[in-house]
Amino acid sequence: MKIVVVGGVAAGASVAARARRLDETAQIIVLERGHHVSFANCGLPYHVGEVITERSRLILQTPESLREALDLDVRLGTEVIAIDRSSRTVALRDTDTGEETTESYDALALCMGAEAVRPPLPGIDHPTVHVLRRIGDMDRIKARLDAALAAQRAGRRGVVRAVVVGAGYIGLEMAENLHHRGVKVDVVELSDQILPPVDHEIAAPVEQHLTARGIGLHLSTAAAAFRPLSGEGGDGEQDERVAVELDSGTTIDADLVILAAGVKPAVALAAEAGLELGPRGGIAVDTHMRTSDPHVWAAGDAVETPHPVLPGTHLNPLAGPANRQARVAAENICGRDTEYRSTQGTSIVKVFDMVAGGTGATARQLDAAGVAYRVVHLHPSGHAGYYPGTAMMHIKLLFAPTDGRVLGAQACGFDGVDKRLDLFAMAIRAGLTVYDLEEQELAYAPPFGSAKDPVNMAGFVAANVLRGDLSLWYAQDYPAGTAGTRLVDVRTPEEYDLWHIPGAQSVPLATLRDAIADWDRTTPVRLYCAVGFRSYLAHRILVQTGFEDVATLSGGSTTFKHVHH
Amino acid sequence: MKIVVVGGVAAGASVAARARRLDETAQIIVLERGHHVSFANCGLPYHVGEVITERSRLILQTPESLREALDLDVRLGTEVIAIDRSSRTVALRDTDTGEETTESYDALALCMGAEAVRPPLPGIDHPTVHVLRRIGDMDRIKARLDAALAAQRAGRRGVVRAVVVGAGYIGLEMAENLHHRGVKVDVVELSDQILPPVDHEIAAPVEQHLTARGIGLHLSTAAAAFRPLSGEGGDGEQDERVAVELDSGTTIDADLVILAAGVKPAVALAAEAGLELGPRGGIAVDTHMRTSDPHVWAAGDAVETPHPVLPGTHLNPLAGPANRQARVAAENICGRDTEYRSTQGTSIVKVFDMVAGGTGATARQLDAAGVAYRVVHLHPSGHAGYYPGTAMMHIKLLFAPTDGRVLGAQACGFDGVDKRLDLFAMAIRAGLTVYDLEEQELAYAPPFGSAKDPVNMAGFVAANVLRGDLSLWYAQDYPAGTAGTRLVDVRTPEEYDLWHIPGAQSVPLATLRDAIADWDRTTPVRLYCAVGFRSYLAHRILVQTGFEDVATLSGGSTTFKHVHH
Ligand SMILES: Cc1cc2nc3c(=O)[nH]c(=O)nc-3n(C[C@H](O)[C@H](O)[C@H](O)COP(=O)(O)OP(=O)(O)OC[C@H]3O[C@@H](n4cnc5c(N)ncnc54)[C@H](O)[C@@H]3O)c2cc1C
Ligand SMILES: Cc1cc2nc3c(=O)[nH]c(=O)nc-3n(C[C@H](O)[C@H](O)[C@H](O)COP(=O)(O)OP(=O)(O)OC[C@H]3O[C@@H](n4cnc5c(N)ncnc54)[C@H](O)[C@@H]3O)c2cc1C
Ligand SMILES: CC(C)(COP(=O)(O)OP(=O)(O)OC[C@H]1O[C@@H](n2cnc3c(N)ncnc32)[C@H](O)[C@@H]1OP(=O)(O)O)[C@@H](O)C(=O)NCCC(=O)NCCS
Ligand SMILES: CC(C)(COP(=O)(O)OP(=O)(O)OC[C@H]1O[C@@H](n2cnc3c(N)ncnc32)[C@H](O)[C@@H]1OP(=O)(O)O)[C@@H](O)C(=O)NCCC(=O)NCCS
Repeated sequence: MKIVVVGGVAAGASVAARARRLDETAQIIVLERGHHVSFANCGLPYHVGEVITERSRLILQTPESLREALDLDVRLGTEVIAIDRSSRTVALRDTDTGEETTESYDALALCMGAEAVRPPLPGIDHPTVHVLRRIGDMDRIKARLDAALAAQRAGRRGVVRAVVVGAGYIGLEMAENLHHRGVKVDVVELSDQILPPVDHEIAAPVEQHLTARGIGLHLSTAAAAFRPLSGEGGDGEQDERVAVELDSGTTIDADLVILAAGVKPAVALAAEAGLELGPRGGIAVDTHMRTSDPHVWAAGDAVETPHPVLPGTHLNPLAGPANRQARVAAENICGRDTEYRSTQGTSIVKVFDMVAGGTGATARQLDAAGVAYRVVHLHPSGHAGYYPGTAMMHIKLLFAPTDGRVLGAQACGFDGVDKRLDLFAMAIRAGLTVYDLEEQELAYAPPFGSAKDPVNMAGFVAANVLRGDLSLWYAQDYPAGTAGTRLVDVRTPEEYDLWHIPGAQSVPLATLRDAIADWDRTTPVRLYCAVGFRSYLAHRILVQTGFEDVATLSGGSTTFKHVHH
Repeated sequence: MKIVVVGGVAAGASVAARARRLDETAQIIVLERGHHVSFANCGLPYHVGEVITERSRLILQTPESLREALDLDVRLGTEVIAIDRSSRTVALRDTDTGEETTESYDALALCMGAEAVRPPLPGIDHPTVHVLRRIGDMDRIKARLDAALAAQRAGRRGVVRAVVVGAGYIGLEMAENLHHRGVKVDVVELSDQILPPVDHEIAAPVEQHLTARGIGLHLSTAAAAFRPLSGEGGDGEQDERVAVELDSGTTIDADLVILAAGVKPAVALAAEAGLELGPRGGIAVDTHMRTSDPHVWAAGDAVETPHPVLPGTHLNPLAGPANRQARVAAENICGRDTEYRSTQGTSIVKVFDMVAGGTGATARQLDAAGVAYRVVHLHPSGHAGYYPGTAMMHIKLLFAPTDGRVLGAQACGFDGVDKRLDLFAMAIRAGLTVYDLEEQELAYAPPFGSAKDPVNMAGFVAANVLRGDLSLWYAQDYPAGTAGTRLVDVRTPEEYDLWHIPGAQSVPLATLRDAIADWDRTTPVRLYCAVGFRSYLAHRILVQTGFEDVATLSGGSTTFKHVHH
């Protein structure tokens, strides 16, 4: 048995490693066109930011270590330029010498990953416009940055500026890490929000946090051109500056541009070999990670896989799925029968002191797919409020209106966000409902959670909605949806005076039972408080007192401000 | 409808709150013999340690706030002294005046909690021997401590010493918090390990951490007597000191003794009223949290509930279950049909910089119940090793040998332990198997996890065991079980020279493929490395090369040292 793997990082190295454990006698060759295998792509931004100080820590394995431990034949600087499926051979080119050879295979695993999108803009090929995928990209960015900062320290120039194009997680990680180095950073994003894996109201607090940290944020804005600023300042490193022209009319003179405008699956090789592609442009695979050719498997950023909630197949360029798909591919290559079911797109990002992420489907995705759903918002603290070091987090839970199955969840906040995202992720994968969330028994001590964990709370609120104990209205409904209703703020007078939704009357919860005596019970009542708890209590009072049309604002004024900010 | 609730803290306040939301017109009376309702028992140790500086933060609700928001009639200082089930009345005594009255009920909810165990030892009633259950206990402990520390600061005496009897989570939290205040603390524990919710090898690293922080740890030791040390030093606060005599012969002169030797369910009232008790001495309830009397419900520390893994019913004095049981009780009291399925005993504790906890059944419990199980140990890091701020954690996963269902999990470590415990907890409740753990898609970015999360890794290793790809031997088997085998250390020569299991030969993994050529394939081989990964690779090589009896040490030398420490 001879297994050839194309690409030697997350998916490729994992296919080879697992295949060796299952088959000690197979010949296993890993072909990697770059100069490193098995490196931590995900750590690259943090070495630029000198959070990870030692570059060597990013290189997890070398061809030597993989030979010693796993008897793998890893060949760097070796690009696969063609696949001949009929003869089961691949054509290789040595990237240094240009020499071409061929290699035969019994099983071929395609793990070519994805490539950074480079929109065809004027000046995009300027040397100071960088993408970040590999160790070499990182080295170039860091060298440029170090030089500019050295010049600044030597008093030869002013503040170093960078423009990050794209506010997905790589863009935001780069923004943070450049900021750590003392760079003035602007982030330019085409969409009207950052972070595609979450909906608007969960992105909003992170946007505020970025701005508060001094990052310039340009939403609904495109980078239009990169104009070289040669010679200005008469200094070597100044020559590498570009003027970044935004379609808003603004121009930013930048020492460094990071293009983080998304990735596309690396499918050229597969497409040329006539392998089937999926509707999203990735390599099509079956549940065994096998392509349309029975001798060829694929895994990682280049493939499309089903989603546990959404119809169709999807691209999810994430390290966890790449690793697990690879493990499944290896098992099937070695004659086992293992299925890879789906990718749910669980992702997370640290943005300075905040954490944000999502799992399953977003409202945008469910809308686009025509899948019915219900939504609740809540704002629990990461752990018991009376124990120091916690803060409010913001959770959006999406679930099926029929059986309550969890469809998606998003959260942002400071402490304990990753834990709740993971629990929602497991709930989605296990097919749990919001009623199941009510019953979870999670570890509680004051530094870690609350006796009713945020995950329980999300279950309570959602189950209350499905059982008809709680009717919600949404910040998006305002002002149209509250016209002709009695809009009631049940917070304290002090909270009301500080800020309230225009048009709302103040009826503090403590006085509500008396106040409603003379209210018309047929006029719709729209309640709100700060997070949704007090207005829920008010709602229970009103519906049980005969009010016909009562609803409480999902997530309260907190979510309202995130939606209307 | 008139609902009477006995006890007004975790379960009691929750029954009343939920009942109000379901029934706006019910009369709801909460009878509490203490001077506070709705306080954070779990926060008490941290106010003693001045981690939670404001005492008021521990009191979450007052009778006034509960009246305003929920129209509850909360009566403090009101002890229920008898239940007359035939007339559906309770007899009350005012704890200040001694006045006795009665109150009728349609539904009675018993939420009396648990009481600290006070073993009948000589001197146990000395005023410096404290239990910690309520605000008043905390105030007394803190006053005593503050006085002793003030005397020390004034130079009137030396170091303040405390003895904590019992090394469950309350005992350890007290040990830590007293230490924070500058007290020299000794912990005395009858069992041969700390922390009953985890097995020996998971407790061991926490024991080492305690000792390293300067806590005196006396395992397999009983406190035998408390002898007053009156007048010594001629100082007021000195009069309150006791000599704590241990059955080991040691005597510790202590300024403060904390009795944290477990709790027992408060069932006197229920038992006198003829309500059925369970085999563990708690109040027996059905899945609707209803006692043997159809008008009486119970919830919280006083009840016994089924376990998702173990046979029979169990006591689990924990805040999360108390709160959720109460919510279920309230729903059924209000005419709904809601079931409480089981309590799995998920618990967690912070011990200085470490975190430890467990969920589901321990090996001890499974052994006692005669339930078959398999075990794997692993030591992943809390997040990507190349990103700063992580450390090795120690995981023990217990699962069914037949279908791989997760039966229990325990972990200790520094970062990310709570998250993995919660995921295992959800897996147990959802009935997931180790194969399901392999497939979980958890949130990964370098500060939060690894592309293969510890939960995935636990699934991989356990599934490998069940699929027959990995055979394990256990540290407990040594030395008897390794006699007559070839015991092989596959770590590097440097690691071997530093320490190795006596009797082991050194064959580094990198040289193994060559070394085995002339080994006898019928001699059993017992492999180990530091954590189990390299010896797993070695194992795969040997079994595929025709060795007949190969096993690798579960958890490697790391677990070995925890077992044999
Ligand atoms: C800066 C950055 C940060 C990231 N952060 C995260 C994160 O926090 N969390 C997360 O889940 N994911 C993150 N990712 C994504 C994650 O790294 C990828 O999902 C994962 O690496 C995909 O694995 P892969 O093996 O499919 O592709 P890659 O890891 O990209 O590997 C593909 C390899 O194939 C090689 N190759 C391509 N074509 C050929 C050819 N023709 N011949 C030979 N070799 C070829 C390439 O040189 C490359 O080395 C991040 C990515 C980057 C770049
Ligand atoms: C110091 C400490 C730390 C803890 N830490 C944690 C932790 O980190 N995590 C965790 O999960 N759990 C923890 N617990 C346990 C948790 O507090 C309990 O499980 C929970 O409070 C049980 O709720 P309960 O309502 O059953 O009992 P309780 O909260 O004890 O309330 C019972 C109430 O009933 C009253 N009562 C009793 N008898 C009568 C009567 N006859 N008439 C009137 N009133 C009566 C009592 O005065 C008491 O206020 C801790 C407990 C303590 C003491
Ligand atoms: C590291 C890499 C080569 C994969 O190596 P690997 O040999 O599969 O090793 P891992 O460290 O992932 O460990 C997983 C294996 O160890 C086993 N294992 C882990 N701990 C174990 C223990 N305590 N006892 C026994 N086995 C253990 C697992 O079962 C699994 O083996 P299996 O797949 O045969 O079941 C590959 O993932 C890689 O190159 N990663 C870097 C690139 C990357 O992922 N980038 C994106 C993220 S930054
Ligand atoms: C606080 C206490 C009185 C319970 O009060 P509660 O009114 O049930 O309130 P909680 O804060 O627990 O919130 C839960 C309720 O709010 C609802 N809720 C929470 N957030 C919400 C939101 N954003 N929108 C709508 N509803 C929300 C939940 O659905 C739930 O209501 P339900 O049970 O009717 O479904 C009681 O738990 C207590 O006394 N606790 C202190 C003692 C204790 O627990 N000690 C041990 C741990 S230290």
